[in-house]
Amino acid sequence: MALAFAALLWHRVAKVSLDDEAPASDESRALLLEQAQRDDAEVVKKAREIQAAIEDGAISFLSTEYRYMGIFMALFSIFLFLVLSSEDGFSTSGRDGRPPALLNGAFSAIAFLLGAATSVGSGYLGMRIATFANARVALEARHGVAEAFMTAFRAGGVMGFGLAGLGLLMLFVGICLFFAVFGSDYEGVYEAITGYGLGGSSIALFGRVGGGIYTKAADVGADLVGKVEQNIPEDDPRNPATIADNVGDNVGDIAGMGSDLFGSFAESTCAALVIASVSGLCNPDFEHKWVAMQFPLLISAAGIVGCLLTAFVATDFRPARNLQQIEPTLKMQLLISTALLTPVVYWLSVSSLPESFDIHTGNADASGALVAITVKNWYMFLCVAAGLWGGLIIGVQTEYYTSNAYRPVQECADATRTGAATNIIFGLALGYKSAILPTLVIAVIVYTGFTLASMFGVACSAIGMLTTLATGLAIDAYGPISDNAGGVAEMAEMGEDIRERTDALDAAGNTTAAIGKGFAIGSAALVSLALFGAFVTRANLGYSDVSILDPKVFPGLLIGAMLPYWFSAMTMKSVGKAALSMVEEVRHQFRTIPGIMEGTTKPDYKRCVQISTEASLQEMIAPGVLVMGTPLVVGTLFGIRTLAGVLAGSLVSSVQLAISMSNTGGAWDNAKKYVEAGATEAARALGPKGSECHKAAVIGDTVGDPLKDTSGPALNILMKLMAVESLVFAPFFASLDGGNGLLFKFLGGAQ
Amino acid sequence: MALAFAALLWHRVAKVSLDDEAPASDESRALLLEQAQRDDAEVVKKAREIQAAIEDGAISFLSTEYRYMGIFMALFSIFLFLVLSSEDGFSTSGRDGRPPALLNGAFSAIAFLLGAATSVGSGYLGMRIATFANARVALEARHGVAEAFMTAFRAGGVMGFGLAGLGLLMLFVGICLFFAVFGSDYEGVYEAITGYGLGGSSIALFGRVGGGIYTKAADVGADLVGKVEQNIPEDDPRNPATIADNVGDNVGDIAGMGSDLFGSFAESTCAALVIASVSGLCNPDFEHKWVAMQFPLLISAAGIVGCLLTAFVATDFRPARNLQQIEPTLKMQLLISTALLTPVVYWLSVSSLPESFDIHTGNADASGALVAITVKNWYMFLCVAAGLWGGLIIGVQTEYYTSNAYRPVQECADATRTGAATNIIFGLALGYKSAILPTLVIAVIVYTGFTLASMFGVACSAIGMLTTLATGLAIDAYGPISDNAGGVAEMAEMGEDIRERTDALDAAGNTTAAIGKGFAIGSAALVSLALFGAFVTRANLGYSDVSILDPKVFPGLLIGAMLPYWFSAMTMKSVGKAALSMVEEVRHQFRTIPGIMEGTTKPDYKRCVQISTEASLQEMIAPGVLVMGTPLVVGTLFGIRTLAGVLAGSLVSSVQLAISMSNTGGAWDNAKKYVEAGATEAARALGPKGSECHKAAVIGDTVGDPLKDTSGPALNILMKLMAVESLVFAPFFASLDGGNGLLFKFLGGAQ
Repeated sequence: MALAFAALLWHRVAKVSLDDEAPASDESRALLLEQAQRDDAEVVKKAREIQAAIEDGAISFLSTEYRYMGIFMALFSIFLFLVLSSEDGFSTSGRDGRPPALLNGAFSAIAFLLGAATSVGSGYLGMRIATFANARVALEARHGVAEAFMTAFRAGGVMGFGLAGLGLLMLFVGICLFFAVFGSDYEGVYEAITGYGLGGSSIALFGRVGGGIYTKAADVGADLVGKVEQNIPEDDPRNPATIADNVGDNVGDIAGMGSDLFGSFAESTCAALVIASVSGLCNPDFEHKWVAMQFPLLISAAGIVGCLLTAFVATDFRPARNLQQIEPTLKMQLLISTALLTPVVYWLSVSSLPESFDIHTGNADASGALVAITVKNWYMFLCVAAGLWGGLIIGVQTEYYTSNAYRPVQECADATRTGAATNIIFGLALGYKSAILPTLVIAVIVYTGFTLASMFGVACSAIGMLTTLATGLAIDAYGPISDNAGGVAEMAEMGEDIRERTDALDAAGNTTAAIGKGFAIGSAALVSLALFGAFVTRANLGYSDVSILDPKVFPGLLIGAMLPYWFSAMTMKSVGKAALSMVEEVRHQFRTIPGIMEGTTKPDYKRCVQISTEASLQEMIAPGVLVMGTPLVVGTLFGIRTLAGVLAGSLVSSVQLAISMSNTGGAWDNAKKYVEAGATEAARALGPKGSECHKAAVIGDTVGDPLKDTSGPALNILMKLMAVESLVFAPFFASLDGGNGLLFKFLGGAQ
Repeated sequence: MALAFAALLWHRVAKVSLDDEAPASDESRALLLEQAQRDDAEVVKKAREIQAAIEDGAISFLSTEYRYMGIFMALFSIFLFLVLSSEDGFSTSGRDGRPPALLNGAFSAIAFLLGAATSVGSGYLGMRIATFANARVALEARHGVAEAFMTAFRAGGVMGFGLAGLGLLMLFVGICLFFAVFGSDYEGVYEAITGYGLGGSSIALFGRVGGGIYTKAADVGADLVGKVEQNIPEDDPRNPATIADNVGDNVGDIAGMGSDLFGSFAESTCAALVIASVSGLCNPDFEHKWVAMQFPLLISAAGIVGCLLTAFVATDFRPARNLQQIEPTLKMQLLISTALLTPVVYWLSVSSLPESFDIHTGNADASGALVAITVKNWYMFLCVAAGLWGGLIIGVQTEYYTSNAYRPVQECADATRTGAATNIIFGLALGYKSAILPTLVIAVIVYTGFTLASMFGVACSAIGMLTTLATGLAIDAYGPISDNAGGVAEMAEMGEDIRERTDALDAAGNTTAAIGKGFAIGSAALVSLALFGAFVTRANLGYSDVSILDPKVFPGLLIGAMLPYWFSAMTMKSVGKAALSMVEEVRHQFRTIPGIMEGTTKPDYKRCVQISTEASLQEMIAPGVLVMGTPLVVGTLFGIRTLAGVLAGSLVSSVQLAISMSNTGGAWDNAKKYVEAGATEAARALGPKGSECHKAAVIGDTVGDPLKDTSGPALNILMKLMAVESLVFAPFFASLDGGNGLLFKFLGGAQ
């Protein structure tokens, strides 16, 4: 019954999300044609050309990137298969009556490829929709804010619903297939499913890092020469790096983000399923076990429906009619979907789950038997609701810290009166401060979930936070689409008033992007913790074995806390380096191409696209190796306890660093927009564009770019990826000298 | 015998350090007189005046600050007494045969006051020496680099040896007194000694934060108007904030730092003593226990002698004769003292400790008896040596990342070619990257100490790292003294060449200050861990009870990791706010005082000093309450396990943040100096002063100021203070609902 319901939901979602796409595109295509006839055909033609250039650049980058990833995926899946199968020496019969490791290796490798492919698909899908929509949004902006907003929002919606639906479908189909082939072997199925999360996350990592370096190298490079040196506006067609900048928005902020959130979604579901299977629901009643395991999928499916209903509010019932309404409208989306889903979650909890069931706590009693606690079905409602409402609180506070309608950003803008330095000091302090509330919220959610239903509760909280994923993705994707629309409007020379409208859409986009990142980080923390719990169990340790005050755990904790810093240093420096070569190319073109400043000769856009592409593909390798290599090296050499420390340390450290980086960057960007827009008396005192204050604000914005779009958002992949990778390889690590690692075996009896 | 030896050492140290002071001051006083006759009497007179103004400002600030602290100390010691005595209901006979809590309360309160008073004394002493030396260094600079360097270094040495000696003496006298009065009640004595550390640390916190805000508000304020707006050089006498800026160096970087490192020293020794007593050396042979407990004091005493011998190398044997030799000479100090002390530590370990002894691991076996491991005496040598050499590695790598003789700072300076934004991106990345090696080093030390001798090993590693404390303090204090000397030279109009010399001294000072911070952070991490271990034991938990995967510990871990961000946000914003009001005052004076820019009218220095004083005293309250209040609130409401999580989380998070902040700030400062000095071809391409690149470098320097001198160095006090406070209040927390906290008792059976 639950299955049929999920299938029905998926079917409806799939149908509606396509419905949602079709009219949006039809409508805008019709409008596009209408425009072409009624208005200046030249502008439309230009917009089309620019759109085509951006689309070409994005497709060419992604194909190159995905080609490299294809090789990586193939090699890693073979590695995965070999390592996991080696656990019992490639035996086909298994040891101690357990199923052969060969089976787990094969399952995991297949799941890994499936996850990676879905992730690639998600990114590609998002990019196509975004490049499809950008010119349309710009053209719509000529009719008014409401029209432009609606188009951008719908395009975001297609991405949101498309991805959420795709993720759910793949998981569901995958599970059904495994069941159909391997029947009752629960453990094998759910263990292998973690491979799916690993595949999704590793693609997300490379996508986020590669895309992030691409977009910010182009953005910073374009701004440094264009805005600062040559004093031409952002996205000016005379700037050789401007196409690369717009391509970057699509490959980094759209494709990368799509892969990232798909990864979060896939992993939180995997985590819940694995925990339900490995350490979880030990009620002897088989049917209940099955139902409880499907509970996560049910919640996710309900979430998609809830978000869908909410989306109608923004698109049909109460769309934003003017600039001031954009941010409130987007915020309402979150509020409505959260409120709507709360009773639904309650109903699902009490109706689909047995009244009470037992769950393992991850510890054994003195006799070695696993300790279990009894969970009532409404406990699960509390866990999911904690995640759901926690996400809303994180989202709302993120808006407070990054929107220029509130004091923090305004204070930051005001600090430009004394120069760039105070702007940066205030911005950094703002970011640090913005980590307080989300951390407290996550701490409360963890306590609630952990106490009520152990790690299953934590995993369900993560799923709860991600129930509004479709909405989150929609309003997140809306940001870069508006950013691109602004670029198209500028390059197609649509005029100052159009640019003002797209700028306002974009300012709201900075805020929604920050909100999206808040969700991504919060859910990533919960998912990582759940995966971490599953890892400990699967590595044959009890929860109480990973004590902070263990000689092997504490050093791991320290090193783990350092990893996000190492990772950020790498990615930020990569952006800096790539931006420097971009700057040199742009300067070179301004010097050597005659007529470029007069607009009579076109700059060589392709060369800049090429520089970004090469730099990002080259620079994403080292951070990727760091993240993927650390669990393997630590687990193999130092053993399970040190790895557990590393995972926990990187989790708690990444959360803070990622939140503060994202919010600092968002705040600087909007402080700059606040000075530019001059909507209030105080803001006008700082402006206009080109004033000393504005220059200081631009410096802040530029510093914030790699923080908010490269390093920050990649950190939540770091924590998830390391956790899921450790989980996948847990049986292998456990087999090395009883989980103590080869180095200590080598060092001998030092202890 | 050990006692007599320690006393002898102290006596020699005290004598020599006074000897050291006397000739330095006599010599320089003689030189000062000689100067006055031979050279321009006017310059000397001016220098004297400026010195007097700086000294007055510093004394007036410190007296105000210490008056407030006096009130705080009195109130807190009463609070401490009442809370600790309440454990057994103020009984005079004690419960279960243990000594009455009243005794512990009284001991702790007295020790707290003693520690606080010593800390105040340390800060005050350092400030007096520094203000005594600054004008002398500037005058010496007229004779040459070597003379100026020697004077600055000697003044630093007086502070280093004075403080290290004072700390050791106070501890020794305190212990002897307690023994004399209370005889054989070991446990009471050593428990109460933690109060000494708490007193030292809480003064250090307020000193660091208050002083840090003072110095940076004045510095940033002076630079923003002077250098950036009015285009007058740093420390120009026409700048109204310049005296406040120089006062700030003395109250923040000298007095604050003195209190801080005294705190580290006191706490590491306390930690070792407490661990040796509470959970530690369980050899039945009484005499060995006594000797082992004195081992930490012996090591510290040996360290002072070793540093003393090393200091002769710099002052007499091979002083720096030119600009290039300054940094290598200072670095050699560390290398020589480390190499010298290694065999001494070995000899002390094998001669003063029994060949092998037992030590508790902090865990109980199944029957509830404490588990003990056997420690050989050369294990202790390994622990101390790990700390000693680890400190050196951290110091050397800090030098690499912050000295402008190496690539990282040069790259950072080079990034100014594309503006302030890339300079800041590179600087942030540099700071993040510089956290990698120190973290790995600390992790290895923790593993070594923990494995060989449990928490006693970790505490001894901390002491090992601090054996070179006197040298560290000397080269650390050298920095702000040189900075001040530059200020005096500029204000007394000694000419460009003198300023160049003091600038070079100052550039080396930035590096040595960063090295000093590296030591402070590394040792603080080890000390905090040792105190944390002692806290867990004293709160009646085993080490294995604080599992990461405990529903109460993990949320604590998250919140703990967030605290340094919260704290930094507060302190950075305080600097920003105070700097803004300073900027307004300076602008106001430039506008309203006629003849100020021509140098015919003196600016109102006093008003700026007053603004800095008021701002810093007001702004230090909130961060102080956060740090001192958190353990009390968490321990009381949420219980011991959550508090344990908070301590561990803040430890691992603070280490990274503190290292990266200190090094980023140091690197920016030296990148600016690199551009200004123009010593190489590449540097000259960026300069001279006033060029676009230089302006970008100044922005980086200004952003770095609060990072490296306010927030960063205060973080190591944060971790130590929270740990030692938790330890002091541990019996109280343990008495609240069995250590589960009042909130959970109130919430009832939710679990």
